[in-house]
Amino acid sequence: MKIGIFTATYLDLKLEEVLKKAVSLGYEAVELPAFKNNPHLDIDEIIKGDNAKKFKKMIESYGLIISALSNHTETNLILGPYGVDTDGIFKGTKEEKIAYGMERTIKTAQAANALEVPVVCGFTGVENFGRFFPFPYSKGWSEMEKVFVEYFSKILDKFSEYGVKFAMEPHPNQLIYDIYTAKRSIELLGDRTEWGFNFDPANLIYLGIDVENFIDTFPKKIYHVHAKDGEIVSHNIRHSGNIPTGDWQRIDRGFRFRIPGWGSVPWKKVITELSLIGYDYVMSYEHEDVTMSREDGITKTIAYLKPLIINKPYEGRNDVLFQ
Amino acid sequence: MKIGIFTATYLDLKLEEVLKKAVSLGYEAVELPAFKNNPHLDIDEIIKGDNAKKFKKMIESYGLIISALSNHTETNLILGPYGVDTDGIFKGTKEEKIAYGMERTIKTAQAANALEVPVVCGFTGVENFGRFFPFPYSKGWSEMEKVFVEYFSKILDKFSEYGVKFAMEPHPNQLIYDIYTAKRSIELLGDRTEWGFNFDPANLIYLGIDVENFIDTFPKKIYHVHAKDGEIVSHNIRHSGNIPTGDWQRIDRGFRFRIPGWGSVPWKKVITELSLIGYDYVMSYEHEDVTMSREDGITKTIAYLKPLIINKPYEGRNDVLFQ
Amino acid sequence: MKIGIFTATYLDLKLEEVLKKAVSLGYEAVELPAFKNNPHLDIDEIIKGDNAKKFKKMIESYGLIISALSNHTETNLILGPYGVDTDGIFKGTKEEKIAYGMERTIKTAQAANALEVPVVCGFTGVENFGRFFPFPYSKGWSEMEKVFVEYFSKILDKFSEYGVKFAMEPHPNQLIYDIYTAKRSIELLGDRTEWGFNFDPANLIYLGIDVENFIDTFPKKIYHVHAKDGEIVSHNIRHSGNIPTGDWQRIDRGFRFRIPGWGSVPWKKVITELSLIGYDYVMSYEHEDVTMSREDGITKTIAYLKPLIINKPYEGRNDVLFQ
Amino acid sequence: MKIGIFTATYLDLKLEEVLKKAVSLGYEAVELPAFKNNPHLDIDEIIKGDNAKKFKKMIESYGLIISALSNHTETNLILGPYGVDTDGIFKGTKEEKIAYGMERTIKTAQAANALEVPVVCGFTGVENFGRFFPFPYSKGWSEMEKVFVEYFSKILDKFSEYGVKFAMEPHPNQLIYDIYTAKRSIELLGDRTEWGFNFDPANLIYLGIDVENFIDTFPKKIYHVHAKDGEIVSHNIRHSGNIPTGDWQRIDRGFRFRIPGWGSVPWKKVITELSLIGYDYVMSYEHEDVTMSREDGITKTIAYLKPLIINKPYEGRNDVLFQ
Amino acid sequence: MKIGIFTATYLDLKLEEVLKKAVSLGYEAVELPAFKNNPHLDIDEIIKGDNAKKFKKMIESYGLIISALSNHTETNLILGPYGVDTDGIFKGTKEEKIAYGMERTIKTAQAANALEVPVVCGFTGVENFGRFFPFPYSKGWSEMEKVFVEYFSKILDKFSEYGVKFAMEPHPNQLIYDIYTAKRSIELLGDRTEWGFNFDPANLIYLGIDVENFIDTFPKKIYHVHAKDGEIVSHNIRHSGNIPTGDWQRIDRGFRFRIPGWGSVPWKKVITELSLIGYDYVMSYEHEDVTMSREDGITKTIAYLKPLIINKPYEGRNDVLFQ
Amino acid sequence: MKIGIFTATYLDLKLEEVLKKAVSLGYEAVELPAFKNNPHLDIDEIIKGDNAKKFKKMIESYGLIISALSNHTETNLILGPYGVDTDGIFKGTKEEKIAYGMERTIKTAQAANALEVPVVCGFTGVENFGRFFPFPYSKGWSEMEKVFVEYFSKILDKFSEYGVKFAMEPHPNQLIYDIYTAKRSIELLGDRTEWGFNFDPANLIYLGIDVENFIDTFPKKIYHVHAKDGEIVSHNIRHSGNIPTGDWQRIDRGFRFRIPGWGSVPWKKVITELSLIGYDYVMSYEHEDVTMSREDGITKTIAYLKPLIINKPYEGRNDVLFQ
Repeated sequence: MKIGIFTATYLDLKLEEVLKKAVSLGYEAVELPAFKNNPHLDIDEIIKGDNAKKFKKMIESYGLIISALSNHTETNLILGPYGVDTDGIFKGTKEEKIAYGMERTIKTAQAANALEVPVVCGFTGVENFGRFFPFPYSKGWSEMEKVFVEYFSKILDKFSEYGVKFAMEPHPNQLIYDIYTAKRSIELLGDRTEWGFNFDPANLIYLGIDVENFIDTFPKKIYHVHAKDGEIVSHNIRHSGNIPTGDWQRIDRGFRFRIPGWGSVPWKKVITELSLIGYDYVMSYEHEDVTMSREDGITKTIAYLKPLIINKPYEGRNDVLFQ
Repeated sequence: MKIGIFTATYLDLKLEEVLKKAVSLGYEAVELPAFKNNPHLDIDEIIKGDNAKKFKKMIESYGLIISALSNHTETNLILGPYGVDTDGIFKGTKEEKIAYGMERTIKTAQAANALEVPVVCGFTGVENFGRFFPFPYSKGWSEMEKVFVEYFSKILDKFSEYGVKFAMEPHPNQLIYDIYTAKRSIELLGDRTEWGFNFDPANLIYLGIDVENFIDTFPKKIYHVHAKDGEIVSHNIRHSGNIPTGDWQRIDRGFRFRIPGWGSVPWKKVITELSLIGYDYVMSYEHEDVTMSREDGITKTIAYLKPLIINKPYEGRNDVLFQ
Repeated sequence: MKIGIFTATYLDLKLEEVLKKAVSLGYEAVELPAFKNNPHLDIDEIIKGDNAKKFKKMIESYGLIISALSNHTETNLILGPYGVDTDGIFKGTKEEKIAYGMERTIKTAQAANALEVPVVCGFTGVENFGRFFPFPYSKGWSEMEKVFVEYFSKILDKFSEYGVKFAMEPHPNQLIYDIYTAKRSIELLGDRTEWGFNFDPANLIYLGIDVENFIDTFPKKIYHVHAKDGEIVSHNIRHSGNIPTGDWQRIDRGFRFRIPGWGSVPWKKVITELSLIGYDYVMSYEHEDVTMSREDGITKTIAYLKPLIINKPYEGRNDVLFQ
Repeated sequence: MKIGIFTATYLDLKLEEVLKKAVSLGYEAVELPAFKNNPHLDIDEIIKGDNAKKFKKMIESYGLIISALSNHTETNLILGPYGVDTDGIFKGTKEEKIAYGMERTIKTAQAANALEVPVVCGFTGVENFGRFFPFPYSKGWSEMEKVFVEYFSKILDKFSEYGVKFAMEPHPNQLIYDIYTAKRSIELLGDRTEWGFNFDPANLIYLGIDVENFIDTFPKKIYHVHAKDGEIVSHNIRHSGNIPTGDWQRIDRGFRFRIPGWGSVPWKKVITELSLIGYDYVMSYEHEDVTMSREDGITKTIAYLKPLIINKPYEGRNDVLFQ
Repeated sequence: MKIGIFTATYLDLKLEEVLKKAVSLGYEAVELPAFKNNPHLDIDEIIKGDNAKKFKKMIESYGLIISALSNHTETNLILGPYGVDTDGIFKGTKEEKIAYGMERTIKTAQAANALEVPVVCGFTGVENFGRFFPFPYSKGWSEMEKVFVEYFSKILDKFSEYGVKFAMEPHPNQLIYDIYTAKRSIELLGDRTEWGFNFDPANLIYLGIDVENFIDTFPKKIYHVHAKDGEIVSHNIRHSGNIPTGDWQRIDRGFRFRIPGWGSVPWKKVITELSLIGYDYVMSYEHEDVTMSREDGITKTIAYLKPLIINKPYEGRNDVLFQ
Repeated sequence: MKIGIFTATYLDLKLEEVLKKAVSLGYEAVELPAFKNNPHLDIDEIIKGDNAKKFKKMIESYGLIISALSNHTETNLILGPYGVDTDGIFKGTKEEKIAYGMERTIKTAQAANALEVPVVCGFTGVENFGRFFPFPYSKGWSEMEKVFVEYFSKILDKFSEYGVKFAMEPHPNQLIYDIYTAKRSIELLGDRTEWGFNFDPANLIYLGIDVENFIDTFPKKIYHVHAKDGEIVSHNIRHSGNIPTGDWQRIDRGFRFRIPGWGSVPWKKVITELSLIGYDYVMSYEHEDVTMSREDGITKTIAYLKPLIINKPYEGRNDVLFQ
C-alpha cells in the first residue's frame, strides 16, 4: 500500500511545490482535484493533445503516481440540492445544474483516461438529506434513489467507455452515507464494475458504525481510500450528540475531522482488514483537521501511518506443528 | 407527575373509546391532535360558542385532563420543506404553505386557550436538514435560523395573547433536534416564556446524547414530556449506524422507536432529573413502537411507568447526624 | 408466545405433580424428557396402542400443551464422545453407542408423532470439542463434520417420515455451539426443513455473542426456545475467563447458568427479535441456576417473563402523518 | 433474608408510628438508633430492670425483630476528628471525646445484649481522612491504624463479654472505607469474631469497586446489610468526579445516595453473592435519597426488593444427565 | 508548546547535571523547586543583588527557560493540616505555620519576579480533606473556604505587586482537587488574574473526570501544565477502588502515578484541547512513576510527547469547496 | 528485559540465517525448537560430546543467548489426545505415545542442561478439552488431573536432576488454559520449583481474562514470556464469539493471533506488571499473525516493543516532600 496526499489541501500553493513537499516527507502518490478553475489540474486542457502525457511525466519525475482524480465539487450538482446550496459551484436551473454536473463528471473520467488514472473519486449529491427520516415525507428517499439510477447509469456508461471507475465517497449529506445506502447503490445500479467506493473512514465512524464492517462488506468495491480521521469527542458527545451543526472550531462539538491517529478510527484494524481483502493501492491523506495546521498534519500523518502499512499477507507455516 | 396518552395513536377509534380504554388502564391525561380533519378534535369547531366548555367537560367526566393540543403536522409547513415533502399536509406554493402553517399553528393556540390547555406541542419544520453539515453550503443553516426567528416571533406573539406556550419537540429533520439547536432557538428568539420544549427522549437518545443533560440544561423550559423510547439496537448499530434510512420494520436497523422501558432511555434517571428540576406535569405516551401492537404498548407502558413516578422531593433530615 | 417448563427439572416428582404446580403458577406448556427410564415419559410405551392419545388427553386436562419431547441425553451417543464420557448413558463399543443413540433419537420422533408434538429437542454430541482449536490436529473438526452429515441425514430422513422436526440446541461441548457452526450445519445437511434449532440463549451469551444475532441469522430455523439465562459474572470474569472448568458452585466462576432475568441475556431484546421474525411458539423454562432453589426459580421466572411477552406485532399507522 | 428498616429515617415520628407503617408495607425487621437523646430508643433506660424485655415484646407485637442497634453518631468520637467536627455530637477535649465515645459504644452493646440483639452497627471515626493520600504526611495513616487497634481492642473485649458483634460500616471519611482497609482492620485486630461489617453497598459503589467483591472477600464477616443505593450520576460524573463536595441536592453532582434500584448497585448480583456466602439475615433500608420523599422511598424500596429475595440455595440435580 | 522538566525529581544531583541531561534529551524548559534548603534553588539568596540575573544566564546558557518556580511544600502550611502532618516542613504552632507558609509563598513570587519567571506553582493545603463528605460535620468545607479567601487574598495582593501568577495544582488532599472546587476558588477570590492553575491531569484522571473538561472549563486559567500521568489500574480497580491508601508500590493498587503515555490520561485529547484554548507554554515532566526508574522516565517521556506537540492551529481552507 | 525470537517461525531457513536476520534487527535472544527432525536443533545430537558447547558458542558469536528450548509438539503426546489427533507427531498406541512424549520431554531438559539453558517451554496435552464443560461427563476433568500429576511428577523429577525448569504455556486445548487451571496445576503438583509458566498473553486474552492478573497471581512462576498478541476482532466478536473454529484466515473470525501491538493485549500494562514482579528475562516473539507476512512481523515487533521495555524499577524519592 502507498501513502498519498490529496493536493486540494494546498490550493494556495502551486502544484509542484506541493509535490516537492510531499515527496520530501515520504508520500508516494497524489490525488488531484478536477473541478473547474482549480489551480492544480485543468481537465479541459489536459485532454488536449499530449498534455496528459507531459503532465503525467512531470508527476512521475517526482517519483509519484496519480492515485485518482477527484471531483467532490461538481458531482454535487447531479442529485442536488439544486438551489442556493450549490450556486457556489454552478449557477443555473435545476436542469442546467444536472446537465453541467454530469458533463463535468464525465469529463473527469475522460481526463483520468488520458492520464491513465484508474479512478475518479466524487460524490452523488442528495436533494434533501433530511429525508433519511421518513417524516414528513416517507416516499422521499426512494424517489431520490430512482433519480440516482437514471443519472448515474448514464454517467457510468461513459466511465465504462473510458475504462475508468467511479469511487463514490460515502459521506453525510449525500445519497450514500453508510453501509446500508452503499449496499443499496450497488443493488440499484445492478452491481457494475464502474461503481465502487472511496472509503473515507472519518465520514462513517461517528455514526456508530465499526468502519471495518464497511471494508468487509465490500471486499471488491473499495477503489480508493482516504487517510482521514474523525474524532468522536468523548468529553463532548453526551452533550453535543454526533451530528452537530455549527462552527467546526467550536470547542464543545461532539465530532470533528482529524488527521489519522488523532480521532476514533482504529487504523490498525482498518489496515488489517484492507490487507485481508487484498486492497493494495493508495491511502490518500486529506487535511480537514480543525485543531492543527496543515504543517502539523502533513508531518504527523506520514510519521503515524508509514510504520502501520502491512506489506505482505501471511505465508502460513508448514512445519509438523501446522500441517 | 401524571401519565397521559397521545390519542393520535388511535385515530381509527372514536375519541371516547380511547378515553375509556385509557382511563381503565390508569392513564390520567390526554394529549389531543389538532391538525385539520383529524377525527378527535376539530379546532375550527372547538373555538366556536361553548363547544370548548362542553368538550372539556366531556374529557373531565372521565377523570382526565387535556395535557396539550399537538400539531406535529401543520407546523411543518412553516419552515418547510415546501415542495412534495409536505404536499400530503397541504398543497400550495411555498408562500401558501407558510401562511397556512402559521395560521393553523395560531389557531391551535386559540383552541388551547378555549379549552384552558396551557401548552401546544409541535414542530418547526426545516427546509433542508442536510445543511447541518456545512458542505456543500456552509451558510445554509444560519440562513434557516433567520427565517425561523422571523416566523416564530410572529407566532409566539399570538401565543402570548392567548396565554398559551409552544412546546417544540426536538426531533431529527427539524430545525431543533439536539441540545445545541435547542439552546440556539432560545437565544435567537430572545428567551421568551412562550417558547419551550416538548421533551421526547426517544428523539435524542440515538445521537449519543445523555438525555438527562437536556433536562438539566433547560430546567425552566420543559413544558411537556413524551413517554416514548428509542432503541439503539445494540446488535445492529455497528453495521447500521444510528441514523439509518429505510423501512422501520427492517430487522437490521440500528435504531427503532419503542415504548418506554424497551429502548435505551434511562427512565429512572429521566424521572429523577425531571423531579429535581421540579417538573410536575404530564408524561404522554405515544405509540410508535415498530415491534409490538398498540394493545401491547398501552398496557405495558402504564405498568412500567406508574411505579417509577416520584411523587415528592426529599424533605431532608434534621436529627443530630445531619444538622 | 407461551411460557412452558421443561419437566426434567423435577424428575424427583411425579409428572402430574409437576403439571399441577406449573399450571397453578401460569405456565402453559410442558417440554418432556424422552431418555430411557426417565420417570415422566416412557417413549417405548407411549408409541403402543392408544397410550399416546390418553397421555395427551391427560396433559390437555391441565390446560397444557406439550411443546417438545427432549432427548439431550441419548443424542450425545451419536457423535460421541464414545468412551467413558457417555458410559453413564449407555455402555458399549463406539459402534453400539452410535446405533443405540440413533435408534433412540428416531424413537423419540416416533413418540412425538404419536403425541402430535411437532418438535424433538436434542444434541448431536461431539467426539472431541477441543478440536475447535486447530492444534494439534487441524483436520479434526472437518472430519467430525463429515460424520455428522452421514448420521444425521439418516436420522432426519426418519424424522421426515414422522413429520417431526429436530431442534438441535447449540451448546458448548457439542458440534454446534455458536452461530458459525449452526450455519455450517444447515449448509452441510443441505438446508432440510427437519433441521433447526432449540435456541437457548444461556449457551451462547458467554461466548461474547449478541444472542439477538442468532435469532436474526436464523429467522426460519428457530423451532423451540429455552428460557434459560447465563450470568457472565462481571466481578469474576477478568480473573476466571468465560469458559471455566470446576464446580458450578465455586464463588469465583466467570460464568454460571441462571434463571431468566438474573443473567446477561437481554430478554426484552430477545423477545423483540423473536417477535420480529414471527416466532409464536413456546419459551420453555429449565432450571439450572446454581444460586437458588427450584422453588425460587419456578416462581421468579414466570413473574419475570410473563409481562415481557409481546402478544402481537405492530399494526402500523395510517393517518395523514404516516401515509 | 428479611427486609428491614432503619428507623433513624423517621426521628420526627414516634417509634410505634414507624413500626405500624413499616409492617403495613411488608417490612419484617427494624434497626434502631442508639445515640443519646434519640426519640426511638434510650439505651440508658433500656438496660434498667425489665425495660428491655417490655420493649422487645412491644416490637415483636408488630411481628418485627430488631436486626441491630446502630450508633453511627457517637462512634465517631473514638478515632475523631476531635475538634469542631464532632462538637455537634459531644463537646469536650480530645480525651473526653474518646472516653465518651468508647463508653457509649460499649453501652450500646450492653443494650443490645439486654434486647437480645446480636449486632451493633457503627463507625470508627478517622482523625484526618485526607491521610489516605501519603502527602504531605506519609506516616499519617499507619499512625491512625495503631490508635484504632488500641481503642477497638478494648471495646471489642466488652462486646465479647456482652456476646454482641460490632458491625463497622465501611464509609468515606472513616478509617475503614474500602476492601483494602476492611481487610487491614481484620488483620490489625487479629481476626476477632466480635469484629465484622455492616455492608452498605452505596458507600462503596462510587469508588469503582465491584461491591460483589466485598461480599466474596468477607464471606464470614458480613453481620448486617444496608439496603441503600448510590447513583454514579452518569451524565455528571465526567465533569464532577466521584468524590464531590457541596450540597447533596446540587444537580451536577457525580454521586448521590439513592434508594435501592435507583442507583448503580447491581442488586441481583449483590443478593446472589449474599445467597452464595450463606447470608440469611436482614437488609435494612435507610433513606438518604436526595431526590425523593421518604414516602416514595419506603414504598418503592420494599416493592423493588421483595421479589428479588432468594429464599433457598440450589438443591442440585440427580438424574442421569448430571450424576 | 515546550516540553520541560521539574528538577525536583533529581534533588540528589546538582542542578547543572540535571540541566545537561535534560538538554541532551531535548527538554526545553525547567521548573525549579523553591522550598527552603532544596539544593537547586535558594530563593533567599536569589533575590539578593544580581544573583537572579546570573542564575538566569546560567540556565539560558543551556538553551533552557525557567517555566515556573514551584513550592508544593511550604504552601501546605497555609491551610494545613497544621499538626504533625506538616511538621516535616516546618515545626510550630498553627499560627506560626500559617505565617511561615504565607511568607515563603510570597518570597517565591519575589524570586520569580527577580528571575523573570511568570508563574509560581503550588498548593493551598487543606485542614481536613475528609470534610469533602458532609458527615460528621456538614459545615466543615465551607468554613475552610472562608479561611482560604482570607489568606490567599493577601498572598495574591503580593503576587500582583510582583507581577507573578499563582498556579494552584488541583490535587487530592488539597482544598482544590476537582473541577467544582477549582470553579469555587475562582468565584471565592473574585476571579483575579493572579489566580489560576497548574494543570496536572494525573491528579484528576482517577476521579472519573474527563480531564479535557478541566481544560475547556478554564480556557483562561491554565498557567502551567504538568506532564504526569495516572494509571487507573484496570485489573485492580474493581477490588481496590480509586482512592486507595497504602504503599505506592503494592501490586494491587487501583491507582498509580505514571509517566506520560503509561497511564489513563488521553494525551492526544489533552494536547488537542490545550491547542484549541491557545495554551502555548510548557508541559513540565515530573517523575512519580512507581514502576520504573527515573532514567526510564526521562527518556520515554520526551520520546512519547515530542511527536504529539501541535505546533500551530488550523489555518482553514478557502477554496470553492469551503467558502 | 531482552527481546528474543522463537526460531520455529523460520523452519524453512537455516538457523544461522535466522540468527543473522534477528541480530540485525536488534533481537537479543533465541528460543529454539526441540522436536524431532526440526532443522534448527537436534537434541539427540546436541547432548553428545562437546556439541552443546560448540553450538552455544556459535549462538553467542552472534551476541545472542538461548532463552529456552521449546517442545510444544511432543509434549502433547503426554496427556493426549492419543489417536489420530497426534499421529502427525508420533504414531503409536496410547501407551507408546505417552512413553515417547515423556522421553522426548525429558531429553529436551537434558539438552537444555547441556546448553546451560534454564528453561524448557512446552505443553501438557489434554485428552478431551471439551470436558471443561461438566456435561456429559462431570468427572472427566478431575480424572485428567490425576493422570497429569502422575506423568508430570515423573518428568519434573528428571528436570530437577538436570537443573532445568519446565515452563508450561497455558493455551486452549491444553489441560492448563487459564488462571484457575494454572493455579490447580501448582496445587496438584505440590508447588515444585521445576514447574512454572511460559506466559503467552495471546492464549489468554480472548477468554475475557485481564492478562495482567495472570502475572500478578504468579509472581514467582513466570519462567518465560511469549511476545504474541491476540486480537479480539471487535467488529466480528458479537457474531462469531470468542472461541471460533474454522480457517484462521476467514474474515469473520472473532479471534485471531497477531503480532504484539496489533491485538488486544495491553502491552504497557503487561510490561509494567512484569517489571513490578521483578521479571527480568526474555520476551520471545513468535509469528502466528494470520494477516501479515513474517517480514512485516519481525520488523514491526521489535520496533514496537523495544521502546516499551522498562529497564529499572523506581528508586523512590528522598527529599523533604516524600520522607
